[in-house]
Amino acid sequence: MSKKKVAVLGATGAVGQRIVHMLRNHPWFGVASLTAGRSAGKRYGDAVKWLLPDGVPENLKDLVINPSTPDAVDADFVFSALPSNVAQEIEPAFAEAGFPVVSNASAYRMEPDVPLIVPEVNPDHVKLIDTQKANRGWDGFIATDPNCSTINFVLALKPLQDIMTISRVFVTTMQAISGAGYPGLPSLDILGNVVPYIGGEEEKMQTETCKVLGVLEGGLVKDASFKVAASCNRVPVVDGHLEAIYLESSEKINLDDVEAAFRGFKGKAHELGLPTSPEKPVILREEEDRPQTRLDRLAGSVPGMSVSVGRVRRGLDEHSLRFVALGHNTIRGAAGGAITLAELLAAEGYL
Amino acid sequence: MSKKKVAVLGATGAVGQRIVHMLRNHPWFGVASLTAGRSAGKRYGDAVKWLLPDGVPENLKDLVINPSTPDAVDADFVFSALPSNVAQEIEPAFAEAGFPVVSNASAYRMEPDVPLIVPEVNPDHVKLIDTQKANRGWDGFIATDPNCSTINFVLALKPLQDIMTISRVFVTTMQAISGAGYPGLPSLDILGNVVPYIGGEEEKMQTETCKVLGVLEGGLVKDASFKVAASCNRVPVVDGHLEAIYLESSEKINLDDVEAAFRGFKGKAHELGLPTSPEKPVILREEEDRPQTRLDRLAGSVPGMSVSVGRVRRGLDEHSLRFVALGHNTIRGAAGGAITLAELLAAEGYL
Amino acid sequence: MSKKKVAVLGATGAVGQRIVHMLRNHPWFGVASLTAGRSAGKRYGDAVKWLLPDGVPENLKDLVINPSTPDAVDADFVFSALPSNVAQEIEPAFAEAGFPVVSNASAYRMEPDVPLIVPEVNPDHVKLIDTQKANRGWDGFIATDPNCSTINFVLALKPLQDIMTISRVFVTTMQAISGAGYPGLPSLDILGNVVPYIGGEEEKMQTETCKVLGVLEGGLVKDASFKVAASCNRVPVVDGHLEAIYLESSEKINLDDVEAAFRGFKGKAHELGLPTSPEKPVILREEEDRPQTRLDRLAGSVPGMSVSVGRVRRGLDEHSLRFVALGHNTIRGAAGGAITLAELLAAEGYL
Amino acid sequence: MSKKKVAVLGATGAVGQRIVHMLRNHPWFGVASLTAGRSAGKRYGDAVKWLLPDGVPENLKDLVINPSTPDAVDADFVFSALPSNVAQEIEPAFAEAGFPVVSNASAYRMEPDVPLIVPEVNPDHVKLIDTQKANRGWDGFIATDPNCSTINFVLALKPLQDIMTISRVFVTTMQAISGAGYPGLPSLDILGNVVPYIGGEEEKMQTETCKVLGVLEGGLVKDASFKVAASCNRVPVVDGHLEAIYLESSEKINLDDVEAAFRGFKGKAHELGLPTSPEKPVILREEEDRPQTRLDRLAGSVPGMSVSVGRVRRGLDEHSLRFVALGHNTIRGAAGGAITLAELLAAEGYL
Repeated sequence: MSKKKVAVLGATGAVGQRIVHMLRNHPWFGVASLTAGRSAGKRYGDAVKWLLPDGVPENLKDLVINPSTPDAVDADFVFSALPSNVAQEIEPAFAEAGFPVVSNASAYRMEPDVPLIVPEVNPDHVKLIDTQKANRGWDGFIATDPNCSTINFVLALKPLQDIMTISRVFVTTMQAISGAGYPGLPSLDILGNVVPYIGGEEEKMQTETCKVLGVLEGGLVKDASFKVAASCNRVPVVDGHLEAIYLESSEKINLDDVEAAFRGFKGKAHELGLPTSPEKPVILREEEDRPQTRLDRLAGSVPGMSVSVGRVRRGLDEHSLRFVALGHNTIRGAAGGAITLAELLAAEGYL
Repeated sequence: MSKKKVAVLGATGAVGQRIVHMLRNHPWFGVASLTAGRSAGKRYGDAVKWLLPDGVPENLKDLVINPSTPDAVDADFVFSALPSNVAQEIEPAFAEAGFPVVSNASAYRMEPDVPLIVPEVNPDHVKLIDTQKANRGWDGFIATDPNCSTINFVLALKPLQDIMTISRVFVTTMQAISGAGYPGLPSLDILGNVVPYIGGEEEKMQTETCKVLGVLEGGLVKDASFKVAASCNRVPVVDGHLEAIYLESSEKINLDDVEAAFRGFKGKAHELGLPTSPEKPVILREEEDRPQTRLDRLAGSVPGMSVSVGRVRRGLDEHSLRFVALGHNTIRGAAGGAITLAELLAAEGYL
Repeated sequence: MSKKKVAVLGATGAVGQRIVHMLRNHPWFGVASLTAGRSAGKRYGDAVKWLLPDGVPENLKDLVINPSTPDAVDADFVFSALPSNVAQEIEPAFAEAGFPVVSNASAYRMEPDVPLIVPEVNPDHVKLIDTQKANRGWDGFIATDPNCSTINFVLALKPLQDIMTISRVFVTTMQAISGAGYPGLPSLDILGNVVPYIGGEEEKMQTETCKVLGVLEGGLVKDASFKVAASCNRVPVVDGHLEAIYLESSEKINLDDVEAAFRGFKGKAHELGLPTSPEKPVILREEEDRPQTRLDRLAGSVPGMSVSVGRVRRGLDEHSLRFVALGHNTIRGAAGGAITLAELLAAEGYL
Repeated sequence: MSKKKVAVLGATGAVGQRIVHMLRNHPWFGVASLTAGRSAGKRYGDAVKWLLPDGVPENLKDLVINPSTPDAVDADFVFSALPSNVAQEIEPAFAEAGFPVVSNASAYRMEPDVPLIVPEVNPDHVKLIDTQKANRGWDGFIATDPNCSTINFVLALKPLQDIMTISRVFVTTMQAISGAGYPGLPSLDILGNVVPYIGGEEEKMQTETCKVLGVLEGGLVKDASFKVAASCNRVPVVDGHLEAIYLESSEKINLDDVEAAFRGFKGKAHELGLPTSPEKPVILREEEDRPQTRLDRLAGSVPGMSVSVGRVRRGLDEHSLRFVALGHNTIRGAAGGAITLAELLAAEGYL
């Protein structure tokens, strides 16, 4: 099978770079086109301020950046790493022009006919694409992955949703600076500091979570019925979002069942053999002080794609549970999240 | 009035140093004696690995360190900055020998006849001392201040307890490294990292809070009846504990009332004119992204003694509330907490 | 004496804020006017993103920001905290309009008729103002203080220049992020990182140093004749520039003399009673591991205004010397540097 | 070829763990025995506080730790990751008992008959082993690799030594906390701080460098004749030592020649096909702000084994040169340094 030709929209940004980097040896997809706003016309190697350890992939250094318009791009599908306000206009143009758009932007995530997918959690939501194409008369489509703190969160909640009726979840996040992109947070704002506010983040966690964990009924998603209260904080770490979770269920909770659910969780992505989906999407740690951000954010068979959970313990009563979840925000929470989604779409025949 | 003569037990440790430092210009108390375990017999200036910016106070550099035994100490009362396991044995010896012991150690905090006091919150609990002396037949006594994360927490809860019936509180802390003392946390454990576990801390917050916010009945404290669920995390900041709080009340909560309660809170300490109690023990911030650890930990008229609260917003329903509280863990949360307690005891005639 | 009325140009930036903050209780100067570019017309309290712990001074919150033009400002003299490219045009306009301009900007530092002064080091250079006024026909004038890493450096070199003929100096800096202003350095560029490059900084240290340590001859400054080689690095600390220095002299160096020179250094600023000049402009530390950035940056009688030196030891031969110098880059190295300069100008009758 | 059986002495420490980790898939060596002091008799998985992201290698978790004595160990050779004071006694005992000892400890580095080797730099120094065995009558021997800051330094100097007569080198280091081992530096000592002192480090850089870059004459090493002046600083980064270097030569220095020397440097290790020696032991960066610690410490074909150099520029005259070098202190600077040395010894028939 020859590789599908991929364009990365917004390839010079922090998420765009991660996508480019994660695709450098991808078995199914090959980068054919890179787009950006102000840098169009420049060599990628000259235009990008590369933020990752390995350096710009050799074969892309000389690639000339295209403008982010459908007629400038030759690709089987596109990844969108555009800022949300830009994505708002550009993604529909691509979808209308016949491109499948796999988007990390928030612009269309909560549209009723746009799927919001974590392949291990709600792969069946791909069918929303049929609704979307029918609604909008597009040849292409938009499919999205959730916000960086939500992806890790739903991966940790899914095994629990499988064994109990979650009624409420309280989550407090300690999020890495890379979640704010580049240049993102000024260093004076975060060095030696904690900032108890991230614009829009709490709303995203509270709404996106219920959509991802919702069920497909009559061609649309019926949101999960539990409530989420999020408190989002920025802490001075480079990568990795740690989340302290308190959860309530309608039924009594057995802690052994919870641990077994975490340990046994696989998800359909594994069955489908998606290359970027790890053996264990959820890794249970039993030490009293793990997972830790720096030590565990790259855990698992595909570094940065697994969520580590730990400190599983009781809440204030038998219907409640406390634990901690950690995920890599720019891998699973952004670039890797989009790539596994594209892999799912390919496996399901949508690309 | 001549100053009362003070001994600081455990004066070479991190909390001991802070006490020594905060007493350097104290109007009521003067340091007369410093004790330590292994360093007894050395000059303080030689023995202490000083951790604070200003340097060892000139007048104490040549003071020879005493052993931590009652007969080696000449003082009107003592501050105990001893490690808890050491305090376990030494504090009763001093109390029995007639010394009032104002302790920052956790060893006796939860004893029914030992007061656990934040002067702005529960100054009337000093009367437990009468019970204690009667019970134990001591000439002296032990009075304690709470754990560093608890002090800040109860200062933030007290104004709310005054206007509502709190039923449950969920708190997630982001705590500074100085809370672990010195040498405390190895740098490899926390640089660029978050550690979601602090040994014993959650239990302390869950039990001490209800004692401090309890009521004195028949010479003993009846604990507050609400429940606390704490998740404690260490983050890479030097000073300042930030706490994300979700609170439930039996009554509907009016956010304007909450803000008014925070703004108007004074506490008896203010009336009594305790020199280390700030004008505003609680400072309400209205910006969407404050308080922040590095910017606000020293806010207020006595730097490090006020708790800053902010992000006051609704929870999942009308009976719930979310907000953030920040306090300086080694000032209000340790040394300053002990010093205001001593000031209260002096004002109430117990010293 | 009534206070002189001061305008701060560029009052919303990081250095402008520090000047405003340091002037809040100044005995000689009172802030009467604040200017900024895009924020003109707004209340200062609304326009400024305040970066310092204490909050915007109450009496300035409601002050309406003026545009940075001479006719919009009513003041006895002005501080310029403007970006260098903006200062390039605006400072001469103010000087021509009759204002003394005390500038922290680099635009005119190296002009032959513009004094570049650290009051404890080269106070006699104020006489360049006479040359400047004669040259340019201005009623006002521009006087400047050096770059943040240079100020600390020349304070450490001056006591040595007094006792030896310095021939070469090699300096490697480890500079704080606040030196880059706000927003300045993106957090992703510096968290857990060292960046071995700061644009223009090495040139500034190499040229400004020799001007400050030069001698006034015939109304102009003759640069010091030694050579400086600087290597400038950014490290992840908030405030404080640490400098590792290797120095060569034409004469043999006696280490005891060096220590005595550091200990005894006062400078004319002290005699003149400048309020922001500390008792000891240079503090000698004798411990083997001091000064340290976080512990010592605020040392001395005026916090942040003294340079701490330490680790005085021999170089490769008897003509060489190694030591370490630490200064607070936004206090002595910027705002405080400009304020003491204004104090000197006032004491010498130039304001 | 079956793998050689390796014992790791001091396997629970920070360097020991790195060696164990780097050997997990080694083509020539297999871990057969692990030793430690207090943990002997325990399972390795239970005894070690594992500091690396990947977790303890599965096949070693159940290995029972041996005491660090020759008769308790069955191996073809041993790596010593012992603390220097312990190595002092134990390493000769192993050598006497017939074991080749490849040591990262400093105890014997400067002994005249003990080789101190970086395989790409001075592989011919292996012949000192013959002298050593003759001198001491041992069946085994001790071979050492340099201190973490020295290894990176000599790798950067060697290409220059090949094209010029170095006369003096001034180096200022900015070293990572992992260089201090575990628990090593207390977090309160380094968070938001720079410490301008590392015990013994400057002496090691000054003496070890000249031995490694010396020449073998008559069975002994004649030290390189240039002088090194080192100033060593600890900065708050986890891994990676950055070094600012100023170098003087007897001849005029051509910067193009310097860059060509860095680019072309290979070393004999490459010819010998040592598996842990990277394609490019020295990587030249041309950007004005690289190498940077976090971005470049893992650069190259064997992550962490190459030294990155950059900012090549003139010094104060035509005989001088400034540049920056960066190396990974726990990989090339410790564990990887010892492993390539063992590979060299194997290739040369000493194991």
